[in-house]
Amino acid sequence: METKKYPKEITALTQLFKKFPGIGSKTAQKLAFHLLQWDEASLHLFSDLLGNVKDKVKPCKECGALLSSSLCPFCDAKERRSDLLCIVSSPKDIYLIEETGIYQGLYHVLNHLLSPMHGFHAEELSLEKLEARIQKHEVKEVIIALDSTLEGDTTSLFIKNRLSKENLSISRLAFGLPLGSSLEYTDGGTLSRAFMGRVDFS
Amino acid sequence: METKKYPKEITALTQLFKKFPGIGSKTAQKLAFHLLQWDEASLHLFSDLLGNVKDKVKPCKECGALLSSSLCPFCDAKERRSDLLCIVSSPKDIYLIEETGIYQGLYHVLNHLLSPMHGFHAEELSLEKLEARIQKHEVKEVIIALDSTLEGDTTSLFIKNRLSKENLSISRLAFGLPLGSSLEYTDGGTLSRAFMGRVDFS
Repeated sequence: METKKYPKEITALTQLFKKFPGIGSKTAQKLAFHLLQWDEASLHLFSDLLGNVKDKVKPCKECGALLSSSLCPFCDAKERRSDLLCIVSSPKDIYLIEETGIYQGLYHVLNHLLSPMHGFHAEELSLEKLEARIQKHEVKEVIIALDSTLEGDTTSLFIKNRLSKENLSISRLAFGLPLGSSLEYTDGGTLSRAFMGRVDFS
Repeated sequence: METKKYPKEITALTQLFKKFPGIGSKTAQKLAFHLLQWDEASLHLFSDLLGNVKDKVKPCKECGALLSSSLCPFCDAKERRSDLLCIVSSPKDIYLIEETGIYQGLYHVLNHLLSPMHGFHAEELSLEKLEARIQKHEVKEVIIALDSTLEGDTTSLFIKNRLSKENLSISRLAFGLPLGSSLEYTDGGTLSRAFMGRVDFS
């Protein structure tokens, strides 16, 4: 009954902030109120970016990395080794790996992990596309860089079995990753160690 | 060097999210990427709200509460007692007090606490306006509901001294143990205040 006294714009903004992972009612409200202290220029910049972020930022048709131009920096053959291909579950993970500076090959974004409970089955992984890229670029080594979770392990194993008929070396990140963690929360040092210590997966 | 590969919209959104209190680089980036999973309708609603929140939500000219209409629900004489006035530092605090349902009087928002180090001096408190409201509404009791911090204490004392010439009862919120807390986890300052403010138990 009392909440109807909030300005309705604040209530609406609070609801939107609650859509973010890890942001509850109390924090969402705090963020909504904080916006009133922002200058007009920042608010309009924020507004404009929200209005067109989905139009401007699109996945690369080749590897799935996020782009705001038509040229994918991770598919540029002059800059990268094309005989190495690293499989990640999300475009975000590419930036984490790039920041370590330890990897110079191609990427392949799955966008999902196998998780029948959440409706993500083998078809969603589009492994035909992955296989086509491996042949096209004459890839010698595939590095599977998926989360060390149940879904990540299952997906890694599934991909390994699927690719094992090809003449490929398949590795996955070493268990430098703390068990049960996701790439998003891993520091660069740990990630580098996991890359260097990657183990043969065949 | 590597960060230039982020789509520039994501970098810009990350910078904006970092403006919020309590949000660091890592969380800001996570929130920026999360927006790409939102549906268009939510993004456009968010964008529209950001574009006009400062135009739509304005402080009440009388008490300083935030409004999205011209009628302030906290200044409505038919609904509220006008002989009680509660002084708060921010419009947000009004909602916290309203949610308890314990108070039915008027509010007065200071918008600042005295803090010479941050450039907030006595003039910024606009106490003439407060005094004018007290006389206009024939207020009998003023409740000072400011933070129990150095700035809050200083401001409370300053306002008390300023208003003491008027024929007014002036109170401030009680300090003591939070409900459900145990002595073991209570800091010394709180415990001292709880001792000093001890109430007759008979």
